[in-house]
Amino acid sequence: MRPLSVRNPRIARLTRLVKRPGERAEQRALVVEGPVLVGAALDAGAAIRDVYVDEAAIGRPAVADVLQRLGSEVEPWALPAGALDRIGDVATSQGMLAIVDRPEPTWPVAAPSSPGERAGGAGFVVVLAGLQIPGNVGTLIRAAAAAGARAVICAGGADPSSPKVVRASAGAWFGIDVIDADDPAAVVARLQRQGWRVATAVVRGGEPYDAAPLDGPLALVLGSEAHGAGSAVEDASDLRISIPMAGSAESLNVAMAGTVLCFEIVRRSRANGVDGAATEAARLPPP
Amino acid sequence: MRPLSVRNPRIARLTRLVKRPGERAEQRALVVEGPVLVGAALDAGAAIRDVYVDEAAIGRPAVADVLQRLGSEVEPWALPAGALDRIGDVATSQGMLAIVDRPEPTWPVAAPSSPGERAGGAGFVVVLAGLQIPGNVGTLIRAAAAAGARAVICAGGADPSSPKVVRASAGAWFGIDVIDADDPAAVVARLQRQGWRVATAVVRGGEPYDAAPLDGPLALVLGSEAHGAGSAVEDASDLRISIPMAGSAESLNVAMAGTVLCFEIVRRSRANGVDGAATEAARLPPP
Repeated sequence: MRPLSVRNPRIARLTRLVKRPGERAEQRALVVEGPVLVGAALDAGAAIRDVYVDEAAIGRPAVADVLQRLGSEVEPWALPAGALDRIGDVATSQGMLAIVDRPEPTWPVAAPSSPGERAGGAGFVVVLAGLQIPGNVGTLIRAAAAAGARAVICAGGADPSSPKVVRASAGAWFGIDVIDADDPAAVVARLQRQGWRVATAVVRGGEPYDAAPLDGPLALVLGSEAHGAGSAVEDASDLRISIPMAGSAESLNVAMAGTVLCFEIVRRSRANGVDGAATEAARLPPP
Repeated sequence: MRPLSVRNPRIARLTRLVKRPGERAEQRALVVEGPVLVGAALDAGAAIRDVYVDEAAIGRPAVADVLQRLGSEVEPWALPAGALDRIGDVATSQGMLAIVDRPEPTWPVAAPSSPGERAGGAGFVVVLAGLQIPGNVGTLIRAAAAAGARAVICAGGADPSSPKVVRASAGAWFGIDVIDADDPAAVVARLQRQGWRVATAVVRGGEPYDAAPLDGPLALVLGSEAHGAGSAVEDASDLRISIPMAGSAESLNVAMAGTVLCFEIVRRSRANGVDGAATEAARLPPP
């Protein structure tokens, strides 16, 4: 453990990394706040560059536990009590903050959808088209990872490397490919050229999601609540889907709706595994 | 519009209402913050008792719009600029705060589940067993209302009348029966006596939710992430269900998992409507 003065230039660099998307992009780094998230990054095998600890928090069990797991490769910096919370995103460092290599994502390749491999083998990806609220982006990264999506492509909207997104993803950032892109329409066009069918969620007027054909390889596009995915994306989509609601059309936010859709896709893959086999059997000539 | 001094005893009463669950229970009142939520309460036909407006916010379109809708029955109080945000829950009044009659909920009666009426007619209720985080309680009230649940029963945990819960419910509080209860095990026993089948979500080891029999009348029980619904409730349940996850078992929080389960129940009701008819047809003797 090395003591670090708040006047050390390292603090200014750290502050830039917390605050500036460009700095994070250039350094290919993520800022991970709190011992729980740093632990999740370790679990996922993320490469930890630096760890900063609040002197006053070193004895706390959650912090001490992570410090012990770091081993000898990373020597943490100890800051004067309270200094870390003036650097962190919204004073939620809980005594610990780590700089971690941003994982290099792989653009997802669509598996050919043969009848036998239909049972989820083709997989799905999630495209976030211009989502502005970091909490929603993080929650959807979490949902996509939990559902087993192959990747989350963030096209416009909130910077996915923002500490707020990392926090809301609850460690899922390190368990799925998170891809940074610009124009949602260009992302959709590229996915379609590569064999992905594109299903865009719309608040109303789409095919009911539970009756729509969702077999893969499928790209699920989620737009912002205010503006949707945009008409260019909606027009180019192979499918427009909606969730029938008992209440008003605004009764689910995009994070909740997206979670329901992700789990419907994976549920359907499982069901298709069974139904697919049944269908194959039915096609056999009678004995 | 009547001016209101911050030294008026009405302000002290308002502060107690914002801060004290007991005061809200005694007055059968909810505190609704912000013009969007006050508008949602009006949409739902809630009875507005008092409206407080920040002088500096009167001209804002969202606030002015709600003031116009209030009509002559409620004369708003105008507070000096900034005073309202020192009263509100977390300084998010956005210039407006209303005291609203807390709707009197009705305990849900289970409809008899005849084969013909299986298609969702029997309905479902959601029981929140000891959920402590107000944001999760509010989000689940929102999800339950959107899925068309008959009621949300809050058994222990966060006070459902808390301004934070009302805020997270995004207006859904006024669109569904929200029932305050104490002991989750007593709630479950009462529901079972009345003909509800009880399905409790467990993090692991339950029947996969998409293969479990979820036809109604069904009570879905959701426990806290840390403690579950408790062993008394789990043991008494007719069914224990889990969501298969691609990631770690902690990869969905209770609000996300509960949303997925609510929408699976309503999806299944719709599917049963169709499948049920198909099954009936299959039972007819061949011509």
